Amino acid sequence: MSERLTAQIAFILEIDRLKSILRQTWISDMSRRENSAEHSWQLALMAMTLSEHANEPVDVNRVVRMVLLHDIVEIDAGDAFLYDDAAQAMKAEREKAAADRIFGLLPEDLCGEFRATWEEFEAGESAEARFAQSLDRLMPMMLNYVTEGRAWQANGVTADRVLKRCKVIDEGSHALWAHAQEVVAAAVRDGYLLPARD
Amino acid sequence: MSERLTAQIAFILEIDRLKSILRQTWISDMSRRENSAEHSWQLALMAMTLSEHANEPVDVNRVVRMVLLHDIVEIDAGDAFLYDDAAQAMKAEREKAAADRIFGLLPEDLCGEFRATWEEFEAGESAEARFAQSLDRLMPMMLNYVTEGRAWQANGVTADRVLKRCKVIDEGSHALWAHAQEVVAAAVRDGYLLPARD
Repeated sequence: MSERLTAQIAFILEIDRLKSILRQTWISDMSRRENSAEHSWQLALMAMTLSEHANEPVDVNRVVRMVLLHDIVEIDAGDAFLYDDAAQAMKAEREKAAADRIFGLLPEDLCGEFRATWEEFEAGESAEARFAQSLDRLMPMMLNYVTEGRAWQANGVTADRVLKRCKVIDEGSHALWAHAQEVVAAAVRDGYLLPARD
Repeated sequence: MSERLTAQIAFILEIDRLKSILRQTWISDMSRRENSAEHSWQLALMAMTLSEHANEPVDVNRVVRMVLLHDIVEIDAGDAFLYDDAAQAMKAEREKAAADRIFGLLPEDLCGEFRATWEEFEAGESAEARFAQSLDRLMPMMLNYVTEGRAWQANGVTADRVLKRCKVIDEGSHALWAHAQEVVAAAVRDGYLLPARD
């Protein structure tokens, strides 16, 4: 086997570990928490299904690539829960080191390409990255609603914090932000989410 | 929310169930069996990493879309283990009905697009479909090797059957078929896979 194929195969086996990185979100049948690999798959399907709702025209293939790659750094850095401020503060440095190691398993050209795609997602400055980030914020909200607010309640999250942290959805898609606000309102109405901390 | 967005969101929530469809393969840390959603994610990363090894030039974005969609029918039809002849025989009809229902949740244009992509994968006649099928056969072989043959042993699968069923890899990629044969030889050498049934 060529050195190049050996490196590519090593990368594919290494990323298998993303299947064991658990998120706070539960899957819709409420049997268990979600992992970051299956989450990434669902975001890719979201991109393929919802791209017409992006505020600006987007290259859907680039959005798909971004969301497929966006959580791979969690293999070393772990999943930082959106409402855990301490974890969020440590996030950037840990994820950069993770990207060095994991994308560094690949041949140089692919390493550069995947790394650039991940950095573009993180920077959130292109139309594709803004839309990808919108999907990444909307999906857990949808799952939290259908699982009766389990992750919100376990972590003491309230509607005002959800709206504040997820307002960024609006930058990628006004239509999806309107839907997100409807989900939050329904969650409060149905008793899955407290309006604000007492 | 528009009727169109309502249908799109319903589809995205429906496919969450793919996370609960278990395959025979175990994930690399041997903690549990793999599900079809995370498997689809890993195939997409494989496509992005290995497309240069396809026998013919392929549009990698189309391969990515195919593998992201290829198992969604299992939500209704279940995962038919490659070495379970009875399950394989029933597969086509059950999966067609599943495609009607699940892709049918989408607005007509997206339903047609996703359905055509899935049918192209199943038919295996385009360069992209042949390569996508190669990835779908190679990945479980790689995971079976690193999990010490657990799925092969649990199902009484032998090397001659693996080679026969996975020979189709060669149609998508001679390089990956060469690697697959090395994996099988290593698995027999290491005692993870019996050469043939007694």
